[in-house]
Amino acid sequence: MINLIIFNEFIDEKERETVKAVYPDGIHTVLKQGLQCEEINIKTVTVDNVNEELSEEVLSNTDVLMWWSHVAHDRVSDDTAKRIQNAILKGMGFISLHSSVHSKPFRLLMGTSCDLTWREEDDFEFLWVCDPWHPIAQGINRYIKLEHEEAYGEPFMIPPPDELVFIAAYEGGEAFRAGCCFNRGYGKVFYFQPGHEEFPTYKNPEILKVLKNAVKWAAPQTRISELSSPNVKKPILL
Amino acid sequence: MINLIIFNEFIDEKERETVKAVYPDGIHTVLKQGLQCEEINIKTVTVDNVNEELSEEVLSNTDVLMWWSHVAHDRVSDDTAKRIQNAILKGMGFISLHSSVHSKPFRLLMGTSCDLTWREEDDFEFLWVCDPWHPIAQGINRYIKLEHEEAYGEPFMIPPPDELVFIAAYEGGEAFRAGCCFNRGYGKVFYFQPGHEEFPTYKNPEILKVLKNAVKWAAPQTRISELSSPNVKKPILL
Amino acid sequence: MINLIIFNEFIDEKERETVKAVYPDGIHTVLKQGLQCEEINIKTVTVDNVNEELSEEVLSNTDVLMWWSHVAHDRVSDDTAKRIQNAILKGMGFISLHSSVHSKPFRLLMGTSCDLTWREEDDFEFLWVCDPWHPIAQGINRYIKLEHEEAYGEPFMIPPPDELVFIAAYEGGEAFRAGCCFNRGYGKVFYFQPGHEEFPTYKNPEILKVLKNAVKWAAPQTRISELSSPNVKKPILL
Amino acid sequence: MINLIIFNEFIDEKERETVKAVYPDGIHTVLKQGLQCEEINIKTVTVDNVNEELSEEVLSNTDVLMWWSHVAHDRVSDDTAKRIQNAILKGMGFISLHSSVHSKPFRLLMGTSCDLTWREEDDFEFLWVCDPWHPIAQGINRYIKLEHEEAYGEPFMIPPPDELVFIAAYEGGEAFRAGCCFNRGYGKVFYFQPGHEEFPTYKNPEILKVLKNAVKWAAPQTRISELSSPNVKKPILL
Repeated sequence: MINLIIFNEFIDEKERETVKAVYPDGIHTVLKQGLQCEEINIKTVTVDNVNEELSEEVLSNTDVLMWWSHVAHDRVSDDTAKRIQNAILKGMGFISLHSSVHSKPFRLLMGTSCDLTWREEDDFEFLWVCDPWHPIAQGINRYIKLEHEEAYGEPFMIPPPDELVFIAAYEGGEAFRAGCCFNRGYGKVFYFQPGHEEFPTYKNPEILKVLKNAVKWAAPQTRISELSSPNVKKPILL
Repeated sequence: MINLIIFNEFIDEKERETVKAVYPDGIHTVLKQGLQCEEINIKTVTVDNVNEELSEEVLSNTDVLMWWSHVAHDRVSDDTAKRIQNAILKGMGFISLHSSVHSKPFRLLMGTSCDLTWREEDDFEFLWVCDPWHPIAQGINRYIKLEHEEAYGEPFMIPPPDELVFIAAYEGGEAFRAGCCFNRGYGKVFYFQPGHEEFPTYKNPEILKVLKNAVKWAAPQTRISELSSPNVKKPILL
Repeated sequence: MINLIIFNEFIDEKERETVKAVYPDGIHTVLKQGLQCEEINIKTVTVDNVNEELSEEVLSNTDVLMWWSHVAHDRVSDDTAKRIQNAILKGMGFISLHSSVHSKPFRLLMGTSCDLTWREEDDFEFLWVCDPWHPIAQGINRYIKLEHEEAYGEPFMIPPPDELVFIAAYEGGEAFRAGCCFNRGYGKVFYFQPGHEEFPTYKNPEILKVLKNAVKWAAPQTRISELSSPNVKKPILL
Repeated sequence: MINLIIFNEFIDEKERETVKAVYPDGIHTVLKQGLQCEEINIKTVTVDNVNEELSEEVLSNTDVLMWWSHVAHDRVSDDTAKRIQNAILKGMGFISLHSSVHSKPFRLLMGTSCDLTWREEDDFEFLWVCDPWHPIAQGINRYIKLEHEEAYGEPFMIPPPDELVFIAAYEGGEAFRAGCCFNRGYGKVFYFQPGHEEFPTYKNPEILKVLKNAVKWAAPQTRISELSSPNVKKPILL
């Protein structure tokens, strides 16, 4: 059984009519419904109590943390961000969605600005599988087509991904590294581009398939209980 | 001074009117004109005498080999392909253009099928810089736009590139890893997608800029005179 | 159930007393005994009938091929090597052991010389886990110590591995990239350095643990029935 | 002309006799003498005024920052570390030496703990070139032998390096990824293991050769003046 926490700010859905129309109960609720299955046990957290909920104890019992954020990156405290980073380095999986490139935990893990360009129109988006052998791409044919998505553009200022599973093309001409895997400590990190709050992307069965695959892929095989360098050792030889 | 050999089949340009109209003297001639400069000494070779011209001696004095092929991959003999592969492993640079994904030297270097999908229409193509710090991308702004190119599609069955400099988006919706770097032995390999024979891609100053950058990048810093494993050594310690 | 074929030349064990003393029934027999378990169904093949046994049909029903070769790389025909390469590109896993760096299938997959230096003494070898999160390293502590192994030395002329799981240090001072993963087409490839024919390396429970992990890791999640580029497509958009 | 700043804490050399004996004027002074040449303009900074000296203006005029730290990582303020990180993301090169794995700038760039194991004896160390084609390895034969160095051990908790130039073996049996390249934003980062304060490692001509190569390699080809995401764009197509 994989313990998954889905974090969603849950602000846009309450404040903007165009978002409320698509996700009246929040992105997290739609994600929870879409990912529910026998192998995954799901809890959701929103920005109102993120700093209290994501305690060290909770994180140490969480296998994968999925993260959607947009306008309130700063309401996650530096301490919470650091706790999350440490939990990932010790083995927890992390799935960063869409605009959460600029969330504190993702930026701490990447060490870069994670900047990109963006354009909010109603472009179609094609997500192409580069690594058809990859666990995250199983069950997906050559591509996923989304009728409407926000366009993201390169340069996407991340470190070179350890595996590149999807690249995207948008109607307006942008291309983007849209599905990227990173190994950080004992933890696995997956970034997935689609998920603008005004489009029903997270109701798309193929997108949910990718996310379910990603949850299974990111669940730890092994975790460590504390980060620390072993002290000076006796010579190994002797 | 960099010694560059440009290989081009020079078949389509003689047999098909639509190609002759764009490259009456051959793709190699246009590339030669476009890349000529004080630092690069250029020779061209076509398929008619490729097996004679690209002798071991010639290759050992060549810094970079640029390769365009399409319909006559098999007229390059297995021995020639192997000679080229060995020259690259010893330090010669290799720049593989467009449909030469299926050339013998490129496939030998990759170890995979190098398959992809393709679609010949007159799509626009955007080439996006992923690695703006990369020597091959210097002087290019965020993207290059080509009015018309053949669309290539993923999955592109190459090994994961060691550096990914460009990704492309086409009007029809495909995305493609369009500018890929590989280290093979002492040699550097760059694959660049654009260059359909019916479009004047190689007259585009930005494309030529990329290719000139690539020639400089691929020129060897060091080369070895023969491939071979050092024999059994005395213990290093003693 | 994973269908595993273990290929071993089975020449040194018959011709050299020092090898016969360690592996009287051949390396393949010891590997078979060591890897046997409920999840793995094992067949062995030796050089005497490798070209007949490893037919296209057999390979298409094989999940993982493990390979030990040393003095008779050339008795595997070019056609057989190519058949194996194609089976891997379609999804079969491949585990290349020790001196099989110079086997035809491994060299075809790498595209490089796969040269290295070597020294036959009776050095100790330490195999260090670089990627403790990796499936192949599960159950292994920080390192494996072998009392006696042949020393391999850099430069190891392979393409940069996609994942580096182990690096080795030897008594005489060499270091070596000893456990390397590669993605090639739909197939996964693992190279593992230890396994000199005069030492009982393949009886070591930790080495067997690594190999069992590698078999499970390399078993395909998905395979394709033929290698081929999809032909010209209709525009995706329309 | 490359503007290089060498930062060294300059604490151990004043407080410990065993260090003073080797580097009476500080590691930075020896490095400065060893790297001095026509193409490099060198300034040194020590921990006493690091927060004042490394202003944004100074950093924006610095091509490469070399860093040795050990016991006073915390005397570099969080603001200074962040300024350094930003300068690197904008293009400045960074060379992290030995125990500076635990410096604030290096950890910010990596996003991981950068933990490792260590053992202070007087082991010999062999540094092996994995990438003999790499600019940083030019002029180095197959290996560098140091008579005495501190042993570092895996797992070294960094992200997978973008290029692995050296691996080390120590007398006691450890192996270590000792020369690692990373791309971060527009900046290039090189980590190099040797350099324990009690051994004259930085007087070794081959070590200095590697460091000089690394300075040239890390010097920016291009830099940007500010980190920021371009705002919402007009559709590119229209």
